[in-house]
Amino acid sequence: MPNTKESDPAKKGRPRSAEVEKAILKAAATLLAERGFKAFTIEEVALRAKVGKPSIYRRWQSKGTLALDAFLTQYVPLLPPINTRSLTGDLQAALTAWIQAVDGTTMGRSLVGLIAEAQSDPDLAIAWHERFISTARGQHRLMIERAIEREEIPRDSDVDVLMDMLYGPAYHRLLNGHLPFNERSVQEVVEVIVAGAKSRSAAPS
Amino acid sequence: MPNTKESDPAKKGRPRSAEVEKAILKAAATLLAERGFKAFTIEEVALRAKVGKPSIYRRWQSKGTLALDAFLTQYVPLLPPINTRSLTGDLQAALTAWIQAVDGTTMGRSLVGLIAEAQSDPDLAIAWHERFISTARGQHRLMIERAIEREEIPRDSDVDVLMDMLYGPAYHRLLNGHLPFNERSVQEVVEVIVAGAKSRSAAPS
Repeated sequence: MPNTKESDPAKKGRPRSAEVEKAILKAAATLLAERGFKAFTIEEVALRAKVGKPSIYRRWQSKGTLALDAFLTQYVPLLPPINTRSLTGDLQAALTAWIQAVDGTTMGRSLVGLIAEAQSDPDLAIAWHERFISTARGQHRLMIERAIEREEIPRDSDVDVLMDMLYGPAYHRLLNGHLPFNERSVQEVVEVIVAGAKSRSAAPS
Repeated sequence: MPNTKESDPAKKGRPRSAEVEKAILKAAATLLAERGFKAFTIEEVALRAKVGKPSIYRRWQSKGTLALDAFLTQYVPLLPPINTRSLTGDLQAALTAWIQAVDGTTMGRSLVGLIAEAQSDPDLAIAWHERFISTARGQHRLMIERAIEREEIPRDSDVDVLMDMLYGPAYHRLLNGHLPFNERSVQEVVEVIVAGAKSRSAAPS
């Protein structure tokens, strides 16, 4: 029989490992939403999840990576895969879902806090890239690639640049706060991207 | 005669106020470039500028606003006003100058550190907006407005959205580091913006 020290709830009356992890992530997400990233501490998460700090450090290497996982647990379900069968429809739906998730929400505050922290926490920057950016971009890429397959936009379109032209302005406004990013902004951005990407069809290749 | 305690160099052999300010800004810029924002302290700036900490606190309310002014002193001269008499030319020149200023440079590291810090320092966020964002956008806006005057793009173009579509993708890559923002990215972004903005001419208004 394998080692059951961590996994057998009957043995010591302790919750099983998966439940501990769930409790930690829930406490972390609540704390992050309530206090923001700067006031987020492993001590407070341990207290709220009713676990010892070693239970947290066994699973996460820093407060940044714990906060990231707690954030993703709540954020990812808000951004489901989209397929409206048109590029305009897909881009509008994706960006509208993003606004609903982050505009004026604690989720948006957590997102901004994590991006800020990743600038000076190399572990978090790596985790941010592996667990969030890569996954999100993998999903967004499909919208552009399907538009190429449908011959809505030319085959030589720069998929990465088009993705950054969709989300870049939105993140830019979220981080700098110079203007709100609203439904009207979504329409304008999507209109320019789609018209601009299509117009290259006419250009000599 | 007015109070000369601060301004008369002969009186106590102290440098005049403008020189003190210049020395502080220079020391701050050097420290910021060498160590990044996290390791930037008023103490160290005072030591390097050979002034007392009160001389700094009299002029700047926080390390964030001092770092911002030090940054702007060096950054702003790298981004001169541009006028090539074509929208494509203007946008390419502006974004290329931005890349040269920040890509892999200490200036770029300072820029990223300031944006990150502004997320949790309200004084810096206000100063960032008043002394940087407003000024920069005022300058960038001219490029789009001149294109409207030349009738290159329609009169009802959303100037703010077009500016964010130019700089948003660049800042997005700088902050998330998922891909480099290079000469090729500049060309792609500008091509989509200009073609997209122009194509709205054909649309019913």
